[in-house]
Amino acid sequence: MGARSLTAGEKLPSIRALAKTMQVSPSTVVEAYDRLAAEGLIRSRPGSGFTVAGSLPPLALADVEPRLDREIDPFWVSRQSLDAAPEILKPGCGWLPADWLAHEPVRKAMRSLARADAAILADYGSTRGSPALRRILARQMVEEGIDAAPDQILLTGSGTQALDLLCRFLLQPGDTVLLDDPCYFNFQALLRAHRVNVVSVPYTASGPDVARFAEALATHRPRLYVTNSAIHNPTGASLSPQVAHKVLTLAAAHDLTIIEDDIFADFEIEPAARLAALDGLSRVIRIGSFSKTLSASVRCGFIAARPDWIEGLIDLQVATAFGGPSPIAAEIIAAVLSDGSYRKHIAALRTRLAKRRREAAAVLEAMGIRPWVEPRGGYYLWCRLPYGRDAADLAKTALRESVVLAPGNVFSVALSAPDLMRFNVAQMDSRAIEVLRRSL
Amino acid sequence: MGARSLTAGEKLPSIRALAKTMQVSPSTVVEAYDRLAAEGLIRSRPGSGFTVAGSLPPLALADVEPRLDREIDPFWVSRQSLDAAPEILKPGCGWLPADWLAHEPVRKAMRSLARADAAILADYGSTRGSPALRRILARQMVEEGIDAAPDQILLTGSGTQALDLLCRFLLQPGDTVLLDDPCYFNFQALLRAHRVNVVSVPYTASGPDVARFAEALATHRPRLYVTNSAIHNPTGASLSPQVAHKVLTLAAAHDLTIIEDDIFADFEIEPAARLAALDGLSRVIRIGSFSKTLSASVRCGFIAARPDWIEGLIDLQVATAFGGPSPIAAEIIAAVLSDGSYRKHIAALRTRLAKRRREAAAVLEAMGIRPWVEPRGGYYLWCRLPYGRDAADLAKTALRESVVLAPGNVFSVALSAPDLMRFNVAQMDSRAIEVLRRSL
Repeated sequence: MGARSLTAGEKLPSIRALAKTMQVSPSTVVEAYDRLAAEGLIRSRPGSGFTVAGSLPPLALADVEPRLDREIDPFWVSRQSLDAAPEILKPGCGWLPADWLAHEPVRKAMRSLARADAAILADYGSTRGSPALRRILARQMVEEGIDAAPDQILLTGSGTQALDLLCRFLLQPGDTVLLDDPCYFNFQALLRAHRVNVVSVPYTASGPDVARFAEALATHRPRLYVTNSAIHNPTGASLSPQVAHKVLTLAAAHDLTIIEDDIFADFEIEPAARLAALDGLSRVIRIGSFSKTLSASVRCGFIAARPDWIEGLIDLQVATAFGGPSPIAAEIIAAVLSDGSYRKHIAALRTRLAKRRREAAAVLEAMGIRPWVEPRGGYYLWCRLPYGRDAADLAKTALRESVVLAPGNVFSVALSAPDLMRFNVAQMDSRAIEVLRRSL
Repeated sequence: MGARSLTAGEKLPSIRALAKTMQVSPSTVVEAYDRLAAEGLIRSRPGSGFTVAGSLPPLALADVEPRLDREIDPFWVSRQSLDAAPEILKPGCGWLPADWLAHEPVRKAMRSLARADAAILADYGSTRGSPALRRILARQMVEEGIDAAPDQILLTGSGTQALDLLCRFLLQPGDTVLLDDPCYFNFQALLRAHRVNVVSVPYTASGPDVARFAEALATHRPRLYVTNSAIHNPTGASLSPQVAHKVLTLAAAHDLTIIEDDIFADFEIEPAARLAALDGLSRVIRIGSFSKTLSASVRCGFIAARPDWIEGLIDLQVATAFGGPSPIAAEIIAAVLSDGSYRKHIAALRTRLAKRRREAAAVLEAMGIRPWVEPRGGYYLWCRLPYGRDAADLAKTALRESVVLAPGNVFSVALSAPDLMRFNVAQMDSRAIEVLRRSL
């Protein structure tokens, strides 16, 4: 066929004829045609051979362009970061660079799973998800003082889906939910989808402000409180045992359910206080995922909750997702967690991050940007900008130079953080720092 | 250490000491301790070495036992089937046996992806999901006469999650939704979670009963209609072009949105009429997944909709799931679809199923169980039981003999199918047939 161009609808030579012309085997032609058909460049119809397909519009640029016109709302950081082109820098994003994660253990697990039974590669999993992974999680929780049996654990598609499923299970439209101020921006975005009212209490360096927490329970009668206890997002603070005890006492008095999102647990060197451990999974539900330390591409979250809630959660997850994570994703994670490579990976990661936090804090302080607390682990620094600087303005300026920042108010229900900013120390390279300096 | 048993809390020998005693390298001991730690049999604490862990309750039997006491409701078939032990037979379930699916192409794709960039193995994907997979889907849709650009396609965690996301986007609590009677039972279960009213119209051998459809629109003013056009679940019927045209005309007159769940598309030899193709993705939204033909373990669904709805759907999916499928799952599917093996797999599957449908129909007719239509493809036979037989009673009897059946009323909003039953011809082996014969 040489370089002659083909027009849409034109018939291609038959497999046999082309094989003869090109002096290759018919199976080589079949393979080539199959690839072209799968790419949509040619079409195959039973009995009518192959024809040239029509043209198709290219992928829209919107997939990769920063959206300069987008309002700064709870979606701002995630939307700008998730769809960022490779050259965009993301000191505002919520994850580690890909090469900091456990990709070697994931490769090993994938090669090994490629040899697994057809059932693992092709079947729906059980409704709770991989027994192997639930057993590993149950063991870990017992170590942390949370007495969870494997059948009290439900795997979900992601940590966010764990929270979403619980909101569906626990909330009615119009209910009130309590959040920390500041808190992870997606809690707000998710609760909005559930048509509930959101109230917030200020977060201190040792957990929620207890007096304001008590006041909020008395005034608003929230049904649910959602929080991170260890390495709180965005502040990096950790809950103290005293505050944990008071929070649980108040929760019991007001029949409040608590979801403890423990997604940053593995970044801690020594575990902080946990509501789930103090409470014993009675009114506290623990959720988590592996996206921050292991892989965000192999997605899986989990819920650990009181046994009598699990059946209802399973029904809801079957109805709305026909199960939890990709079974294959859960098996990859179980494999990575059950050999020693993950423990080594995490140990190295903690050391690397501790160094990065110190370096980034020094660079920021030199610019007059002051960390609010010194976190016990993880990759966030929650910082106050120099006097009079507005974080949203700064984020818009930086975005024009292809740097995604995380301005304080996206984390604040009460919009109380106009001069604060969350920095991801693992994503702060010299160009990002330079743009930040220029934009200040 | 020999056969001496260890008690909880007991300290294990140091790595160096054990390596010396056992005459192995310290790295061998580290690896062994790591495995035991990951299994939770021993604990490691920085500075204090390894100790023996406490015991843990075993996996509850509830994970694998048939639930004889469960009421026959829209969850009955999925819950009994998903958690069935390997020895349970499932002629009532909604999927093919694992070894009928594309596990060889999946193995190949996994081996190849194990060598991919760290970004693919570790990063969150873009908000719409794998560009490679969306491009393949767009090309396929253009071939089917549905003019969808890649950025009109949104990948989701599963076909069910596609439907769930759309319901969140389109519906308010209290809205009315129209279903076919009978229809896929999970449509009912899912809509219940959305707090909407459900009404239904009888499904005929060529689509919904048009007169009853018109009546339902006028009386109930539904906001949404959810249907399968090709190889309708459970009946196996396919929509005729005449009915498709009438349905769309009525939908336009009543401003009805339609979700066409095209999950069985690849089982058709010649495509039937499609609402999405006639309508051009204006008021019709197409959803689908790869769980029925390729793998239910590598989960991924998709939505193809009008471009101005995609942004809102992305925000909702970020809020409630922080994205769609595992990026790694989407890449496995893109790889399988873009070489010729999937096309060959599907061609072989269609032939195999046609033979099985004929054989199963003959066996059932010999028992007085009569197929309602002869399906154009797929693995379902929707059948009427002999006079006076109750499908729910039959299902309960068969379950006591470890056979899961799918009684008609789980598919019927109006409970109009007490004497009908859906059979999965690929899951009907001789023991299942024997139990069915005995239970009748």
